[in-house]
Amino acid sequence: MRQYTPVNFADVAIEGSFWHERLETVLTRTIPSQHRQLDEHGILESLTIPEPPPPLRIPRNSHAFTTQIFWDSDVGKWIEAASYALRHRRDAGIEAQIDAITEDLARAQLPDGYLNCWYIGREIENRWTNLRDNHELYCAGHMLEGAIAYYQATGKRRLLDVMLRYVDHIAETFGPDAGQRHGYCGHQEIEIALIKLFAVTRDRKHLQLAAYFINERGRHPPHYFDVEAKARGDDPAAFWARTYEYNQSHAPVREQTKVVGHAVRAMYMYAAMADLVAEFDDAELKRTLETLWSDVTTKQMYVTGGLGPSKHNEGFTKYYDLPNDTAYAETCASVALIFWAQRMLNIDLDGGYADVLERALYNGALSGLSRDGEHYFYENPLASDGSHRRWRWHTCPCCTMNVSRLVASVGGYFYSTGPDTLAVHLYGGASTTVSLDGGAVSLRESSTYPFDGSIRIALDPHEAMRFKLCLRIPDWARDVAATVNGEAVDVMSSTVNGYLQITREWRPGDVVALDLPMPVDRIYAHPRVASDSGRVALRRGPLVFCVEGADNPAASVPLIGLPREARLDVDRRPDLFGGIVTVEADGTVASLDDWPDVLYRGEPAVRTPHRFTAIPYYLWNNREPGEMAVWLPEA
Amino acid sequence: MRQYTPVNFADVAIEGSFWHERLETVLTRTIPSQHRQLDEHGILESLTIPEPPPPLRIPRNSHAFTTQIFWDSDVGKWIEAASYALRHRRDAGIEAQIDAITEDLARAQLPDGYLNCWYIGREIENRWTNLRDNHELYCAGHMLEGAIAYYQATGKRRLLDVMLRYVDHIAETFGPDAGQRHGYCGHQEIEIALIKLFAVTRDRKHLQLAAYFINERGRHPPHYFDVEAKARGDDPAAFWARTYEYNQSHAPVREQTKVVGHAVRAMYMYAAMADLVAEFDDAELKRTLETLWSDVTTKQMYVTGGLGPSKHNEGFTKYYDLPNDTAYAETCASVALIFWAQRMLNIDLDGGYADVLERALYNGALSGLSRDGEHYFYENPLASDGSHRRWRWHTCPCCTMNVSRLVASVGGYFYSTGPDTLAVHLYGGASTTVSLDGGAVSLRESSTYPFDGSIRIALDPHEAMRFKLCLRIPDWARDVAATVNGEAVDVMSSTVNGYLQITREWRPGDVVALDLPMPVDRIYAHPRVASDSGRVALRRGPLVFCVEGADNPAASVPLIGLPREARLDVDRRPDLFGGIVTVEADGTVASLDDWPDVLYRGEPAVRTPHRFTAIPYYLWNNREPGEMAVWLPEA
Repeated sequence: MRQYTPVNFADVAIEGSFWHERLETVLTRTIPSQHRQLDEHGILESLTIPEPPPPLRIPRNSHAFTTQIFWDSDVGKWIEAASYALRHRRDAGIEAQIDAITEDLARAQLPDGYLNCWYIGREIENRWTNLRDNHELYCAGHMLEGAIAYYQATGKRRLLDVMLRYVDHIAETFGPDAGQRHGYCGHQEIEIALIKLFAVTRDRKHLQLAAYFINERGRHPPHYFDVEAKARGDDPAAFWARTYEYNQSHAPVREQTKVVGHAVRAMYMYAAMADLVAEFDDAELKRTLETLWSDVTTKQMYVTGGLGPSKHNEGFTKYYDLPNDTAYAETCASVALIFWAQRMLNIDLDGGYADVLERALYNGALSGLSRDGEHYFYENPLASDGSHRRWRWHTCPCCTMNVSRLVASVGGYFYSTGPDTLAVHLYGGASTTVSLDGGAVSLRESSTYPFDGSIRIALDPHEAMRFKLCLRIPDWARDVAATVNGEAVDVMSSTVNGYLQITREWRPGDVVALDLPMPVDRIYAHPRVASDSGRVALRRGPLVFCVEGADNPAASVPLIGLPREARLDVDRRPDLFGGIVTVEADGTVASLDDWPDVLYRGEPAVRTPHRFTAIPYYLWNNREPGEMAVWLPEA
Repeated sequence: MRQYTPVNFADVAIEGSFWHERLETVLTRTIPSQHRQLDEHGILESLTIPEPPPPLRIPRNSHAFTTQIFWDSDVGKWIEAASYALRHRRDAGIEAQIDAITEDLARAQLPDGYLNCWYIGREIENRWTNLRDNHELYCAGHMLEGAIAYYQATGKRRLLDVMLRYVDHIAETFGPDAGQRHGYCGHQEIEIALIKLFAVTRDRKHLQLAAYFINERGRHPPHYFDVEAKARGDDPAAFWARTYEYNQSHAPVREQTKVVGHAVRAMYMYAAMADLVAEFDDAELKRTLETLWSDVTTKQMYVTGGLGPSKHNEGFTKYYDLPNDTAYAETCASVALIFWAQRMLNIDLDGGYADVLERALYNGALSGLSRDGEHYFYENPLASDGSHRRWRWHTCPCCTMNVSRLVASVGGYFYSTGPDTLAVHLYGGASTTVSLDGGAVSLRESSTYPFDGSIRIALDPHEAMRFKLCLRIPDWARDVAATVNGEAVDVMSSTVNGYLQITREWRPGDVVALDLPMPVDRIYAHPRVASDSGRVALRRGPLVFCVEGADNPAASVPLIGLPREARLDVDRRPDLFGGIVTVEADGTVASLDDWPDVLYRGEPAVRTPHRFTAIPYYLWNNREPGEMAVWLPEA
């Protein structure tokens, strides 16, 4: 059912300044520093199983949960990110680091293939007894993704072979047959990895195992997590999250219509489901995903593409519950939303998916990485009193490697090919050469997007050939103009599902110009979003803006307002963050001078004119800590 | 330092319809039904210690905390409420119930006086090992308050004597001497009870023990809760709340300047501190309380008098953090605020304390009890999507008896006497006879307050006598008029600290008329309160209003707005809740008809005129469940 194939990031050269800067930062600073952090925090050492194993630091099934059970996944995700880096440029040092990890893993692996370092080192007798909480398959999935990426980057098979033995063990352990466990992981992830593995091995066993985990999920009674809880002597009702909605196993996946629970688990699951739609031409599963997509994007998504308002379940609560200062909006959730969106996009080439992908990419996901490449947000609130700061590392470092693997492979989100079709999803200066039925085509897109919407696309087919060029017209763009070799294209009539379609015989040297005007737009939230009632946000192109204390020392950010008719100016600031665009606005500020020391009174605060500066949201908290707001009172 | 003495509720006859209805409901329905609930939930049975004791249902020091350790306190609080009821009218059935409880307690009491039924029944070897978490002294305090109230109501000493033996044991166990534990309860409460006991016994040992608990609190190093945690083999750093701010022991009480942590604990502590100010003429402690009072009322209090926005710590977070739909605002916290406010008021006769007392009484506290007297709110949010409902009972039933003991003794908040002074704090139809230096004075206040501000006060001194009558002028009142025997009083020039002072020779038959006009007021929150930004609330007299779905079936409540200039009408509704006043407003409603199925767009929602009805907040959720909002978009 998938009609389009993403062009692999390794075949896309990032040339535009925006992503080139981010990519170089990730390659030269983030990935090396992440290895140092994994080392300094004992995570790499945890792969080296001592003899005898150290005693348990926490009692089993205690509520004193430890993030150490995730450590294999953190290493796997770093290997994946580092392997993507290797495809940009080989690096013997990184390879040596991954090879050393590989040897630790090979030594730790049990004769039957089992390979989870926490369980092997601490409580091997308890393996596979708590899929609900203890992330064994999740860890396996991330390590598998790392092994695949490393194999693809270097051709070295050793880590992949280790993981293949583990996958064989998993495939023997889990499945529908008598004697197998009819289970699945409390934290979905391995499904994505197994489908990636299938793309390498073409062994349908790997695809089938992914499909099994998805299709078995939430089938009951008896519910698998009830069964295994009883088997280990626990009361299933004592599950801390109280509901299997937490891990999306409350119902069979095909019967799910609302996006609930832990946001990252949900997004990883939907991404895997989208892969299965494509692999199995599964129309029913596709309808399920369309329902879930609509549910999350029309009722539960922050304007930044952030997902999951609640810290309690790291996930969803109820429709339109989108508080700003307490937004959880985990970086991982936005990254995983991008994974899902890309898969949906390549099934249908519907710009709605790309719009969400771009929203999350430039805002809720990219905000997770500091400009220096070595600090992170785990949570991405949309307002702050100054206390929310970037971390150098996190007790649960999942987000750190999620954002580095995303940026290291960002080129993979720019282009897709389909039958006689070349689709461009993102802009910002990237070139590639793809094979269509008629032959090879080189494409070079040049722009300073996302700061400017003037885009030039130079096409260079090996020889004149007819195909359809699809250029994404973002949902925020109005008054779009395009030309081919200087001749105007009727954008309106040629745009289908958010893509301007130009089918013609393309010749070497053809140039398409696309103009996406970027005025500053005011954004209003659905009136049921109580947190944004009476408030307005600013967006320019794909970038959501915020007001930060560092640019606005003369006023307290929460007191700054923006009247409906106030003038908004665009300011190009080569001095700021290596060159960005800011918004300058004739706003207001609530005066506290005449407000007595009371909480409530009969008159609203007097507001006085106050010109303020807004910067792109993803850049906040890269200077001194301070207040921040995305949604401003319209006053 | 206390200059004024509250007139005991037993000496105040509640005659006005508002409080008479609430009081009768509590006497005839709430208190009997609470006994049934205590019985049905096994709480009464828990006082009957079987032989041998039942096994622990939960492991010690587990995070699987049980509310059963509070059960003694629930019984004690019910005895207190029921004893207040007995002072309105004797009831042999209630006395038999309390006597039966007394016998259980007497049987359970250990030879050394110790009397905590949880510990005696389950883990006596662990008594006094976890004051931080396990509420032993809190339970003792509530049972002591119950015993005092029962003794005062009936003259029966048996329960009081049992508790006196327990107090002796506590006084031996805790204190500054070598061999004593230098501890205090994680949940303050016993301090209030001991000071009440001192009022009965005049034994300074009881007062000194209360003072010890207050003054020792938060003194470190070493911190008592660290010491006891280590002694029982726990890591003090593993304290779930992470900070001793949770129980206000992070610093010596006199050094505290910010209201932090669990709201009920804080309020109980401040109430006890205010008692100590009065008893010891402690000017330093008074300054501390004034600082804390200002802190909470100017930065951390809901417009309803609700306290504590967070469910996590059942308490305070940061300044101006007052979310509406997730407001915790526990009923107990507003009740306890009333306790504190009354004590401050009787030190200084400053109307600011009475204003907060009244705000909490008519709104955040009274909302905790249903109109039928048998359903409760534990949390009192200021907005609801319809999912927040009253409980018939609660796992932790602390609030149920807190509101019943408050209403059963509400007459005690109306009047105070001081040197040649009679002060009237509340209105609503109440009469009393008090002794001043010159002799006895009867006072009958008649009004339909809080629905109308036309107040008549008939004074009937035994014979002509000179004294100062102080009539509270609420902070919300403007254009106040008053007459004495029909002759106008200059209210402005005669009002000091929120009290209209009329000093004269009063004669039998004198009548004071006080007119407190009650227009509907718009209320705005401090501009730092992000949740109320762009929103307006309605207040008339002391009542905060809300919009509830039951009165507004034609629109979804969160979509209802109130433009700044819109007309507000008062509607007398004898048909509703036995006769109330509603507010009818020419509001607006956000139209969803033209809002597509998206979360964000470039234009705010179109609003159309929509007349709506608002009812007093305390009455919400007494009909079918539905949406509710206090703060309306000003749109």
